[in-house]
Amino acid sequence: MASTRDQAAQVRLANPHLQDDRHDVLYHIGLDSRKHDFKAMFGDTKVVCMGGSSNRMKRLAEDLVAELGIRLPTGQGLVNVIPNTDRYVMYKAGPIVCVNHGMGIPSISILLHELAKLMSLAGATGVTFIRLGTCGGLGLEPGTVCISSRSLNSQLQSHLSQFILGQPVQREAVFDSDLARELLQLASGLNIEAVSAATLCTSDFYEEQGRTDGAICEFSMEQRNEFLQRAFEAGVRNIEMESLALAAITHRLGIRAACMAVTLLDRFKQDQVQLDHSLIAQFEGRMLRILAAFIRSRNICG
Amino acid sequence: MASTRDQAAQVRLANPHLQDDRHDVLYHIGLDSRKHDFKAMFGDTKVVCMGGSSNRMKRLAEDLVAELGIRLPTGQGLVNVIPNTDRYVMYKAGPIVCVNHGMGIPSISILLHELAKLMSLAGATGVTFIRLGTCGGLGLEPGTVCISSRSLNSQLQSHLSQFILGQPVQREAVFDSDLARELLQLASGLNIEAVSAATLCTSDFYEEQGRTDGAICEFSMEQRNEFLQRAFEAGVRNIEMESLALAAITHRLGIRAACMAVTLLDRFKQDQVQLDHSLIAQFEGRMLRILAAFIRSRNICG
Repeated sequence: MASTRDQAAQVRLANPHLQDDRHDVLYHIGLDSRKHDFKAMFGDTKVVCMGGSSNRMKRLAEDLVAELGIRLPTGQGLVNVIPNTDRYVMYKAGPIVCVNHGMGIPSISILLHELAKLMSLAGATGVTFIRLGTCGGLGLEPGTVCISSRSLNSQLQSHLSQFILGQPVQREAVFDSDLARELLQLASGLNIEAVSAATLCTSDFYEEQGRTDGAICEFSMEQRNEFLQRAFEAGVRNIEMESLALAAITHRLGIRAACMAVTLLDRFKQDQVQLDHSLIAQFEGRMLRILAAFIRSRNICG
Repeated sequence: MASTRDQAAQVRLANPHLQDDRHDVLYHIGLDSRKHDFKAMFGDTKVVCMGGSSNRMKRLAEDLVAELGIRLPTGQGLVNVIPNTDRYVMYKAGPIVCVNHGMGIPSISILLHELAKLMSLAGATGVTFIRLGTCGGLGLEPGTVCISSRSLNSQLQSHLSQFILGQPVQREAVFDSDLARELLQLASGLNIEAVSAATLCTSDFYEEQGRTDGAICEFSMEQRNEFLQRAFEAGVRNIEMESLALAAITHRLGIRAACMAVTLLDRFKQDQVQLDHSLIAQFEGRMLRILAAFIRSRNICG
């Protein structure tokens, strides 16, 4: 692993079928190697920031430009890099890319495959992927930033289960421990409440997360509480819907990655998210400050 | 089932925890029963149309207004009903709602839970859910409209597998056979190439669909071809990423539903989607015409 973490290391794909000089259409991000010069556009990328919502990723890119003092030439502003598609949006300022991943494992999985191919074809080196999300917490004050050490599936196992060509494949879902520790230390230095722990990642927001307020619910309140307690005892401190794919795919490819998510509620106490937008924005601002501190520490913004 | 298909039948939830007079926040569609009058806004809904892309759903709503001759009062145009969120967009014209579901089972599953709750609280009756998507075909000319009879998971089994509170739950993934037959007949009457068959639904666009052009690929071309052949022999004629949840959740709730998806390529021949946008739009127009014919046959647009 050490060599892939090197700042000089390129993103290496795990696919012997792909030729380096191929024509490649990255369909869902609307980029085509014949129409776009990937090296010129993305060769300098160092940090890829991801989150579920498209508006939030636009705001994140704008906030990073302000926070990091990145100077855009007069008359220029941030525009969506991938206007040919509305599956995702992408913004880029210097070596930083911000892109939304939608909701759930399949949606982030498509993005990760296409981003890895993009970074590989662009010849980008020393790239770090960081997700900034929202989540439910377990036994934490709303507003706590959870930095995932690993991701657990709905059976509380630390791997992503897939059926590839009909056969079961399990991929370990762990995050880079050095990076997680570094982000936690940066949070601490900024006096931001943060924990590093296991994250439960589900394929459904209602039933798999033990919510009793979905259109379908076939379990009792007691069974719900027992499940959340069991997750807590397995080390889980937050619950979301993308970390398994992020951990498993980046780990398989040797890409350094982290998952930060801020808790919007304590699931031991409630199921419905009833915070107002300004408070959510304030909570998200905490992740922005940690991220900005991380990027500053890397001296990549000139 | 017969009574739930009745035009007078309300959407019934399968959740004993929910009170009829509850305060309900439909978080991901940005609607709140205390702030929005669900009955006034959605009580007249008869058809809910869904597709992955937000722009496509806006265009679909506009096209339906034109195609069906729905008259909007002078000075009024279609606007997004749910501007408080950017997770989804929603348009409404008379009894027709158009909403995007993003990509993958988790994303459409969140939407289906919240739509079912919305329709139930609104007291809407005789509601039909129809997905209009794009897909890969098996042995079909690009541009063929596939109407799903049932949905198969990545193991080629006709159920959605979940782990709810850590326990395996399997829900049958079948569509309303009368509705599928009706849509197929309408397509035939319009001279649109269409088939009714099983649909393979995966949680990953690359590996689980047997593509050799993802960032990761651990199988040979021969194994890929065998898998696609096996799927074909199991009755599969198209492959997409949402039909399992649509079938399983609507079947569990007794909501009449259909899944139409137009093929963009023949997966026996290629993996990459390389059609240009105008051809994709032309293909999608075929589903619009079938949908418009269906809505006309129901005499619901005054």
